[in-house]
Amino acid sequence: MKICIIGLGLMGGSMAIDLKKRNYATHIIGYDQSNLHAQTAQNIGIVDEIMEIEDAVISSDMVVLAVPADATLVILPRVLDLIENQVVTDVCSIKGNLAERIKYHQKRSNYVAAHPMAGTEHTGPWAAKSGMFDGKAVIFCDAESSSEEALHTVRDMYDHLHMRPVYMNSFNHDAHAAYISHISHISSFALALTVLDKERNEKNIFDLASGGFDSTVRLAKSSADMWTPIFAQNADNVVTVLDTYISKLQDFKKAIEENNKTTINQLITEANKIKKVLS
Amino acid sequence: MKICIIGLGLMGGSMAIDLKKRNYATHIIGYDQSNLHAQTAQNIGIVDEIMEIEDAVISSDMVVLAVPADATLVILPRVLDLIENQVVTDVCSIKGNLAERIKYHQKRSNYVAAHPMAGTEHTGPWAAKSGMFDGKAVIFCDAESSSEEALHTVRDMYDHLHMRPVYMNSFNHDAHAAYISHISHISSFALALTVLDKERNEKNIFDLASGGFDSTVRLAKSSADMWTPIFAQNADNVVTVLDTYISKLQDFKKAIEENNKTTINQLITEANKIKKVLS
Repeated sequence: MKICIIGLGLMGGSMAIDLKKRNYATHIIGYDQSNLHAQTAQNIGIVDEIMEIEDAVISSDMVVLAVPADATLVILPRVLDLIENQVVTDVCSIKGNLAERIKYHQKRSNYVAAHPMAGTEHTGPWAAKSGMFDGKAVIFCDAESSSEEALHTVRDMYDHLHMRPVYMNSFNHDAHAAYISHISHISSFALALTVLDKERNEKNIFDLASGGFDSTVRLAKSSADMWTPIFAQNADNVVTVLDTYISKLQDFKKAIEENNKTTINQLITEANKIKKVLS
Repeated sequence: MKICIIGLGLMGGSMAIDLKKRNYATHIIGYDQSNLHAQTAQNIGIVDEIMEIEDAVISSDMVVLAVPADATLVILPRVLDLIENQVVTDVCSIKGNLAERIKYHQKRSNYVAAHPMAGTEHTGPWAAKSGMFDGKAVIFCDAESSSEEALHTVRDMYDHLHMRPVYMNSFNHDAHAAYISHISHISSFALALTVLDKERNEKNIFDLASGGFDSTVRLAKSSADMWTPIFAQNADNVVTVLDTYISKLQDFKKAIEENNKTTINQLITEANKIKKVLS
């Protein structure tokens, strides 16, 4: 299988590494709008060659889009215009807008909407690594709009990445993603801003960070270019979740202001139930 | 050195393991109000023997209090009443109230207020592990109120735990801890409550959790009995930080509602500065 990967950052790069290593891809053609990323990806052996998008697409059996959500909205229809029988897939964290954008494209059935739920807070081809997807879930959205053949091909690709398939429509995907992934990032960004605002002495932050701060704030290192279009495209869901989240914080604030230890304890005990779900 | 450790949970248990292993303690006497914890700690070899508090204190050269903040307020004065020349220290995450409580005790100078900035979200002697403190910071509060000998003994103990000493007064400690540790926990508890409120389908949480949720919500597993008195005792600082945090979240909410990508991007880029501080 000759694969074209558009976007050679953390996601595209990590896919390239394992698809080659695990013999799914025989040849990988890469494209990245940054020459530095493209050249780096080739130099460190993540891709076999670099081409412009048009050439890359027509030279491949399969096209993977691994670019931010705003760029995907532009590039996906362009790729669908270019293909004949190729299978196309993307890795966006946000699916609704994209689904609408290509709903009536004559090559719609060649496309499989996918969201591999894996990543780190790092970016660029330097961050790419083997095994990043192992054991995690990949969400296939609106699978009934893809041809059986396209779905089979993409599922097989994720099987080589050792991911577990989950099926949802785009609408439900975006709502769940807001609750479980997008809000975590906003929570972490806001936490970083709070501390940076108040703690002028960076040494204090460093010394005290082992008290749990480091793990909650890890996501605050995540890329602005990646996350801005996600929040913008998932605005309604994210705002709804933010309202709930802020009201939970206000519950804590009220209980603490009133020195109501019973309520503080109840809130924490209730939050502890997350243990049942997460290992 | 014969050491008495009061409280045989994650903190006390982990200290016991490394203090023995690294030849600081020759004999460790333990006490825990839970018989199950005390017996477990003895059975798995964390402590050499179990005694009641009074006997444990008078049989030791040094006393380490490793119990929640509310229990420390009660037990510390009681231990200071019992000692002759013993050195006493604690591991509380909150220092102001405690400092006030024993300010005029005639044995004040035998006591060293310490906050080792290490831990996990797990609890009990089962969670105790070697190396937990390595490389982290220990904050010594109001060190000028301790005798040189007591300070030397406790510093030496933390040196055997491979911790870096940092000095602060209790007042500053509690303000910094609110910003860097306490708010992270509230942020995480509130996140867990938000998700548990809205996501009735636990399988969705599990499948989608790899999108960053698992790391931000890890702290939400932390014990209610440990954190309730911390928030209650640090109420003023915690409420101030919560106000800032909620206002940062409202900045995000406003920018997302207005679909103002420039502001969303700026907020994230500003938050990214936390990279400079955290590795």
